[in-house]
Amino acid sequence: MKHGANIYKYAKKVGLKAEEIVDFSSNINFLQKQYDLHVNTKPYYEPTYKKLKNTLSKVYSIPQKQIALFNGASSAIMALLYSLKEKEVTLYAPLFGEYEKASKDKKITLINRYTNLYALPKKGSIVVFVNPATPDGKYYDLKKLFKIWKKQNCIVILDESFLEFEEKQSYRSYISSYPELYIIQSFSKFYGCAGVRIGAIFAKKKHLAKLPQPMWALSSFDVEFLLKRLRDSAFRKETIQKHEKQKKQLKKILERYFEVYESDANFFLVKNSYKKLFQKLLKQGILIRPCGSFDFLDDGYIRFAVKDEKSHKKLKKALRKIV
Amino acid sequence: MKHGANIYKYAKKVGLKAEEIVDFSSNINFLQKQYDLHVNTKPYYEPTYKKLKNTLSKVYSIPQKQIALFNGASSAIMALLYSLKEKEVTLYAPLFGEYEKASKDKKITLINRYTNLYALPKKGSIVVFVNPATPDGKYYDLKKLFKIWKKQNCIVILDESFLEFEEKQSYRSYISSYPELYIIQSFSKFYGCAGVRIGAIFAKKKHLAKLPQPMWALSSFDVEFLLKRLRDSAFRKETIQKHEKQKKQLKKILERYFEVYESDANFFLVKNSYKKLFQKLLKQGILIRPCGSFDFLDDGYIRFAVKDEKSHKKLKKALRKIV
Repeated sequence: MKHGANIYKYAKKVGLKAEEIVDFSSNINFLQKQYDLHVNTKPYYEPTYKKLKNTLSKVYSIPQKQIALFNGASSAIMALLYSLKEKEVTLYAPLFGEYEKASKDKKITLINRYTNLYALPKKGSIVVFVNPATPDGKYYDLKKLFKIWKKQNCIVILDESFLEFEEKQSYRSYISSYPELYIIQSFSKFYGCAGVRIGAIFAKKKHLAKLPQPMWALSSFDVEFLLKRLRDSAFRKETIQKHEKQKKQLKKILERYFEVYESDANFFLVKNSYKKLFQKLLKQGILIRPCGSFDFLDDGYIRFAVKDEKSHKKLKKALRKIV
Repeated sequence: MKHGANIYKYAKKVGLKAEEIVDFSSNINFLQKQYDLHVNTKPYYEPTYKKLKNTLSKVYSIPQKQIALFNGASSAIMALLYSLKEKEVTLYAPLFGEYEKASKDKKITLINRYTNLYALPKKGSIVVFVNPATPDGKYYDLKKLFKIWKKQNCIVILDESFLEFEEKQSYRSYISSYPELYIIQSFSKFYGCAGVRIGAIFAKKKHLAKLPQPMWALSSFDVEFLLKRLRDSAFRKETIQKHEKQKKQLKKILERYFEVYESDANFFLVKNSYKKLFQKLLKQGILIRPCGSFDFLDDGYIRFAVKDEKSHKKLKKALRKIV
């Protein structure tokens, strides 16, 4: 499994409907909330997306001119790595697969962040760090790393897509002082809307100007939806409260069966020693994420996303039945 | 003006609201029709967009495996030209600006299709042809050109985004026989939904496999909207009927004041000799598209899109008042 969340394919394999699958492989906010949208799809949207940038500027405390918008963080990552001319990339691994995919025309060096965090990346290379990291959810204090990166003359790509669940400190304030820093921000995860394709890069204006950007990258529906969600302070508050409660609940369930790693995000990495767990859980309508596609890990590691009460109950029951 | 349809900017200039502007610069279907959408934005959409490809396959009579989807035709054009390694591009001009923008890392040669249509493009170059063409709307029989392109070993990009208004013959059937042919298909124009960001490239499977494609390029809202519209045969029928009627009406209005060129699409190119026409019409709440940004043309040429009865009346009145 190269990416989670393809419930459609796996449901079919075991003769279930997609709706019958609880998707623990997909680490997006479990809260459900829809809005009545009044969108006119006929005309072109205001092409600079000023209203959305203005709102993001307030929510993320960042100047509007330091925001570039893409149709999803995946697109942002591809556009960024395609446009950077530097031919060497250092990835702090494990990390999710998009960065390796987007670096396929470059020379990739891996640094194992578990065993070798302060290794020197190649001089002048692009470094990629995801914080909190995937698939384990660990949040790193990056002060020392930033010093190393600066000394090594590195261009830094920092992915903070899982930062908001536990209100960890962002490194957005480093944008003005660090020579060339790009921060990737997905809105699908915390705002719980994977079907809404909007992601951002935060960086200095002169760096954003280099990026290839088609006109009208965003759906008018998506813009209106995200505007509503960003302005919905109750959703943010409820997320943070419920996330804390549900995370504890999931941890308790997982600890009965697995070694569970510490996490600062909305998912847990566990060490599994039960055989055919993926297949057995799938038959019970539960999709999990084996981590064999992550560097330095194998399918003996599994990632579980924090879900709602009902999903946790289903998992608990299934685990009791199977193992 | 590099692209039409920025009513927001121009409305502000003359102290009007965007809604008060009739936008003759934007050449999308004037029909209005919305749908009730039942979209769950939380989960990731089925990542291969099978349902949409299946519907497109029927509507455009093309195998599903020959369809690649992007968030708008602009994105498709950028992805295609970025991924093609050939360094020389021949553009049949005038044509809209996206192709030149997406070719900025290549050597661009222009062929004036008005005066020099059968000039030989450079051997092994990428050729780009828009049919019906912009900004004049002329539909070309391409048989002879395809022979020339084949002899010159050219990779062909053919943009058929304005084909359906007058049900002209597509060259999609050439995909299997021509060595390397990409057909660009926007859905905003004919289906009247510029806020819905979906566009396609039709090509052989092996050629599509080379294109950079982020996962989940499309908004779930947009996919559901386009599915409804593609299946709405009444919308297609009404468009073709009303387009014919409205096009005649617009032509009659324009011919009183300008030299009007023949068109096979939903817009007209005219030769203008009135001074400050753009500013004067803008003050009356009418936005037009001067063609100075098109190669081989200047701001003495203007493009008018076919609109509804009310918009045409407004134009008629304004022209009578001004000139």
